[in-house]
Amino acid sequence: MSQEERHTISILVGNEPGVLSRVAGLFSGRGFNIHSLNVAETLDPKLSRITLISVGDAQIQEQINKQLRKLINVVKVIDFTGTDCVEREMALVKARTPPEHRAEVLRIVDIFRCKIVDVSPHDYTIEVTGNRGKIEALLDLLNPLGKLEIARTGVIAMARSKKGIKK
Amino acid sequence: MSQEERHTISILVGNEPGVLSRVAGLFSGRGFNIHSLNVAETLDPKLSRITLISVGDAQIQEQINKQLRKLINVVKVIDFTGTDCVEREMALVKARTPPEHRAEVLRIVDIFRCKIVDVSPHDYTIEVTGNRGKIEALLDLLNPLGKLEIARTGVIAMARSKKGIKK
Repeated sequence: MSQEERHTISILVGNEPGVLSRVAGLFSGRGFNIHSLNVAETLDPKLSRITLISVGDAQIQEQINKQLRKLINVVKVIDFTGTDCVEREMALVKARTPPEHRAEVLRIVDIFRCKIVDVSPHDYTIEVTGNRGKIEALLDLLNPLGKLEIARTGVIAMARSKKGIKK
Repeated sequence: MSQEERHTISILVGNEPGVLSRVAGLFSGRGFNIHSLNVAETLDPKLSRITLISVGDAQIQEQINKQLRKLINVVKVIDFTGTDCVEREMALVKARTPPEHRAEVLRIVDIFRCKIVDVSPHDYTIEVTGNRGKIEALLDLLNPLGKLEIARTGVIAMARSKKGIKK
């Protein structure tokens, strides 16, 4: 049980200043890098939902989960590791593409079912959603065609069964 | 300049444990609540990009931005407040809908150009992207039709001009 694993964790927290810093601090205090994280409001204005991806030893993750559950303002912790869940991510990709490559960029956008959300004389801004693999594949194809700027949301996750955070 | 404002901030940071905790701590230390935040990798594996939305006094935000720029591992800070930028968010919405409301849910999904990414006998899991207003409008329409579970990524942003974080 001591191999490196990718963990997807959902945490329901009270909307108080400091809670995100404490959650992130629990990971960094053990030298665990957070690969991606996002936090946003829920339907209950007093609560926010954090989704984070960490990579590390399964036993240490289990200890971190226990400590997360003890933190003030942490309402619920779900570790999706090894369970059946939907994971999705979004990215904005601004591709500064020379004119001779634009047709190819548009073909790739079409194949990946992306949306172009902004255009200037020099670049396209592309919205893509999917799992990590799809976003990586898109970036690998676009990268040789022009300079890219990217902003990724990190993964959000939801259990496929009835289990989950009901908020 | 002391009115409450919504600020969209992009921060390019080195991938070291502790940086997220320090960034979040700068806000909570001044009682500034972070409305949403996300952090994920860039094309450079040594760097991550944070996008956060905060609401508060413009002068204090300016002080926080200065302090952010002084933090170890912070490479670049862009405050998009008052500039022309693309802002997008994604949400997963699991709607536990009774059979008599499913046709209406599917009509709403169609009108909002959402995707259904998972189905069970009891619920639909819906992916929606757009600005905050669109996601709020969808939730307002779905909420009366059945119990919802939501996970939002928080906003990611990109400058419309050539300015921006080139990574």
